[in-house]
Amino acid sequence: MSKEITSRSQDYAQWYNDLVLKGGLADYSAVRGCMVIKPYGFALWENMRDVLDAKFKETGHQNAYFPLFIPKSFLSKEAAHVEGFAKECAVVTHYRLKNDPNGGGVVVDPEAKLEEELIVRPTSETIIWNTYKDWIQSYRDLPLLINQWANVVRWEMRTRLFLRTAEFLWQEGHTAHATAEEAIAETKQMLDVYADFVENYMALPVIKGVKSPSERFAGAVDTYCIEALMQDGKALQAGTSHFLGQNFAKAFDVQFSNKENKLEYVWATSWGVSTRLVGALVMAHSDDDGLILPPRIAPLQVVIVPIYKGNDQKGLIDEKVQSIVKELKAAGIRVKYDDSDNSRPGWKFAEYEMKGVPVRLAIGARDLENNVAEVARRDDKTKSSVSLEGISQHIIALLEEIQQGMYNKAKTYREAHITRADTWEEFEKLLDEKGGFISAHWDGTEETEAAIKERTKATIRCIPLNNPQEEGKCVLTGKPSRERVLFARAY
Amino acid sequence: MSKEITSRSQDYAQWYNDLVLKGGLADYSAVRGCMVIKPYGFALWENMRDVLDAKFKETGHQNAYFPLFIPKSFLSKEAAHVEGFAKECAVVTHYRLKNDPNGGGVVVDPEAKLEEELIVRPTSETIIWNTYKDWIQSYRDLPLLINQWANVVRWEMRTRLFLRTAEFLWQEGHTAHATAEEAIAETKQMLDVYADFVENYMALPVIKGVKSPSERFAGAVDTYCIEALMQDGKALQAGTSHFLGQNFAKAFDVQFSNKENKLEYVWATSWGVSTRLVGALVMAHSDDDGLILPPRIAPLQVVIVPIYKGNDQKGLIDEKVQSIVKELKAAGIRVKYDDSDNSRPGWKFAEYEMKGVPVRLAIGARDLENNVAEVARRDDKTKSSVSLEGISQHIIALLEEIQQGMYNKAKTYREAHITRADTWEEFEKLLDEKGGFISAHWDGTEETEAAIKERTKATIRCIPLNNPQEEGKCVLTGKPSRERVLFARAY
Repeated sequence: MSKEITSRSQDYAQWYNDLVLKGGLADYSAVRGCMVIKPYGFALWENMRDVLDAKFKETGHQNAYFPLFIPKSFLSKEAAHVEGFAKECAVVTHYRLKNDPNGGGVVVDPEAKLEEELIVRPTSETIIWNTYKDWIQSYRDLPLLINQWANVVRWEMRTRLFLRTAEFLWQEGHTAHATAEEAIAETKQMLDVYADFVENYMALPVIKGVKSPSERFAGAVDTYCIEALMQDGKALQAGTSHFLGQNFAKAFDVQFSNKENKLEYVWATSWGVSTRLVGALVMAHSDDDGLILPPRIAPLQVVIVPIYKGNDQKGLIDEKVQSIVKELKAAGIRVKYDDSDNSRPGWKFAEYEMKGVPVRLAIGARDLENNVAEVARRDDKTKSSVSLEGISQHIIALLEEIQQGMYNKAKTYREAHITRADTWEEFEKLLDEKGGFISAHWDGTEETEAAIKERTKATIRCIPLNNPQEEGKCVLTGKPSRERVLFARAY
Repeated sequence: MSKEITSRSQDYAQWYNDLVLKGGLADYSAVRGCMVIKPYGFALWENMRDVLDAKFKETGHQNAYFPLFIPKSFLSKEAAHVEGFAKECAVVTHYRLKNDPNGGGVVVDPEAKLEEELIVRPTSETIIWNTYKDWIQSYRDLPLLINQWANVVRWEMRTRLFLRTAEFLWQEGHTAHATAEEAIAETKQMLDVYADFVENYMALPVIKGVKSPSERFAGAVDTYCIEALMQDGKALQAGTSHFLGQNFAKAFDVQFSNKENKLEYVWATSWGVSTRLVGALVMAHSDDDGLILPPRIAPLQVVIVPIYKGNDQKGLIDEKVQSIVKELKAAGIRVKYDDSDNSRPGWKFAEYEMKGVPVRLAIGARDLENNVAEVARRDDKTKSSVSLEGISQHIIALLEEIQQGMYNKAKTYREAHITRADTWEEFEKLLDEKGGFISAHWDGTEETEAAIKERTKATIRCIPLNNPQEEGKCVLTGKPSRERVLFARAY
C-alpha cells in the first residue's frame, strides 16, 4: 500500500493528496470544493478541537451558537468586511423546490423567493455583533467572551483538501470589551493560546507576528497570526487573532454605558483556527511512507500486531496482548490490537505506517517466550526490543520522546529556513533555490508589497512580534526601512 | 426576576418562551426561524451531546463529516425522500455578490449562477449514500457505522425556539449493513440508546414504538420512535431511528459482493436526535418559577450563595467556601460560587431558580459558626440544614435523589395520562379534557388516521413495541382492529 504514495521529491502536491486520501483522512465529495472528512481524519480533528476547547474554557470563554445564515444587508454594514467576502459567498435565494409542471423534474419554485437573500456565513462577525447589540448595555455586561464551533463557506475558486475548501469547520471567538487595551490583550492572549496548541500538541513551531495592512482580515484594525513552515519551504498561516477596534460596534451600533454612565462603542476581537490545521499537520511532519502524527493528538497512539503461525500461537499471544491493552488503556493510551486475519503482518505494518500511528508493537511466539515486544517508532523508524514488564511506563515515555523529537525536527528545519536577504538578487535566488522565510527590509508601502508578490508570488507573512529595529533599505525599492519582515511563498 | 414568567395555567406557550429566553437558553435571531443558542443553553446541549457521543462510540460508531450542500439532483433520486423535503429547502443558487452598477448597493451577481442549485442539507442520506458508493465494495467493508454532528435546515413556516427552528443542530447516524436483519437490529439498538439517554439523563420517560406509514421518515421502510409527554398533555417525538431497507442503496446504486461473491444492495439505517430535546427538557420538568434541570446534564449542578454583612463576614465565608468548592469539584460536581456584590442574595436565589440549578447552598455567618449550610433543592423547593463535614458525599447523594425524583414525577404524570378510549365520544372528550396519550383501536388505514387528525389534531404517535394484540373496533369507523395504538396531540 505504501508503494502507492507519490514521493515528495517527485510531486509534493500529489504526495500531500495521496497522504490525505490514502491515509484515510478525507475524500473528495460530489459538491465542488467540499470534502468529506473520514472517520480517521475526524477523530484527529476531534482531538485537536477538544484540546483547544479546554484552553478556551480555561481562559474564561463560553461556547454558543449563531445562525448559519446572514442577511445580505448585514454583510454590507462594515465596508471593508463586505469588500473582503462578497466575492466568494454562497447565496440562498429560494426556500422551496417543486415538480416542474413542464416535466423538467424537481426545480426551484420561483414563487418561493426570499425577500432578502441570505448568505451562508463565511465568518460570523456581522450576525454576532447584531446580536451583541441586544446583550450589551452596561460595562457590567463586559467582557463578553464567546466562542463558536461551526461550519463556514467561502466559495474559493481553487480548492485543496483541508488547506482550502469551500466549506470548512472551524472555531471563531468573538469577544467584546470596554477598552481598547483589554481587547488588544485578549487578541494577544488568544494568539498565545494558538501558538501553545500548535507547538505543544501539533509539534509544529510557529512565528508570532502581525500582518501587513494588505493581509489584514476584512474589517480588522490589526491581524495577529502564527506562521508555520512546511517541508517544501512554503509557509502556512496556522491561526489568526484580530483586534477589530470599534469597527463592528459602530457598524451595528453596539454601545455600552461606562462607569461614568456615558455611552461608548464596544471594542472587539475575533480569532479562529480551522480544519486547515489538519493539512498543516500532514504537510509538516509526514514522509514518503505516509502520515506521521504527533502522539498527543493522534487518534491511535499505539497499534499492536500479532505475528503467529496457527491458532495455538495466536491464542497465547491474544491472551498476553489483552493484558497489555488493558494496562495501556489504564494509563490513558489510545491503543488498538489488530488481530484481524484478513491481512498479513507486513500489510498491517505498511497500513499503520501510512496512517502515522506513532508506535507499533509486534509480538510473536518467540517474543512471548522472552517476555518482550518489538517496538517500532513511526517518526524515525527505529526499532527495539522492549520488556513487557512495565511496558506502559516505557510507552508513555516513548510517546513523549516522539512528540518532542517531532517538534525538534520541525524546529531545526524551520531555523535553517529563515534567511536574510539584503539585495533583490539574493531575495529571488533564496526564494527559488531554498524557500522558507526570507527576512528582508521593506519600505512599508502596499505598492512594494504588491510588486514583490507579482514578481515572485511571495507575500509578507508577518512582522514578527518584538521585532528588532534596524536601519536598512527595502529589498526591492532601496527606500529606507526600520525593520525586517518575513516574506515567503505560502499556502 | 421570576415574577416576569407567565404561568403555565395562564399561557403555556408563553410560559415556555419565557423560560427559554429568561433562563438564558436561547434568543431570537435576525434570521427568520433561526435562533441563537446562548452560552447556558449551549452548555446544556454540550452535556447532552457528550453523553450521546460516548454512547455512540461504545456501540462501535465513528464520527465523520459530510458536505453542508446537496446537489439538487441527489435529493431527487429517492422518490419519497424528495417528496418529503422539497417543500422546505433552502436553495443556494449563486456564489458571489457585487456592487450594483446602478447604485443599488450590494446585490447578487447574476453572472455567478450555479450550474446546478445546491440544497442546504435538511438531512444527509443522499450525500452520504452517494459517498458510500465509493466506500463499499465487499462484505468486508460492512457494517459501516458512522455518525455526524451537524447543522441542518428545514424551511418550516411556523417555528418555535428549540422545538421547531429553520436551522437546528443534531446528530445523524447513517449505517450500512449486509443483511436486513442486521440493519433492523441496529435500528432498534439505536432506539434503545436514545431511550436510555432520555430516561436516565433527561429524567424523562418515553414510549418506544413504530410510526404508522403516514408518519414515516421520507424514504424509510420503518420509523421507530420514542415519544415523551409534556406537562400540557401534548406528546413530543424525542428521537427517531429508521430502517431504510435498500431504498437509498438502490437510489445511489450501492452494491457489495457478498461472501458468495454475488452482488447485493446494501441495507441501511439512519437515526437522529436534535436540539429539539432541549425544548422537551424545558417543557417536561420546569415550573412557574423557571427551569428545573436534571443534575446529570445540568451545566451547573450546585450554586453557592454567601449571605453576609460587611467584608469581615464575607472574608470568613469566602475562605470556607473555597474549600467546599474544591471538595465538590474534586468529586466531579459542577459548582459555582456566586460572590458577586452586584446583587443581593434574594435576587440571586430567584436567578438560579430561573436557571434551574438543581441545588443551592446558602452560607451565612451563623451557618459558619455551626459548620452548616442551607441546602435548597430546585425540584421540590425543600430546604434543609446540612453539616459541612463531608458535604460532597451529601451533595452527590442529593443530586442522584433529585435525578431519580424528577424521573419518577414525570413517570407518574405520564402513567396517569395514558387512557383508553373505546368510543369516539370518549376519544374526543379525553383529548379535550385530559390530554395525554389515548390508547384506542384504529382500522389501520391512512384515511381514518387523516380523518382523526382533521377532526381533532391528534395523530398516531406510535404503535408501541411489543404491543398486546387484542380484538377491537376502530374508534372512528368501527371497523375491526387487532391492536390499540397511541394517539395524542403533539409538538
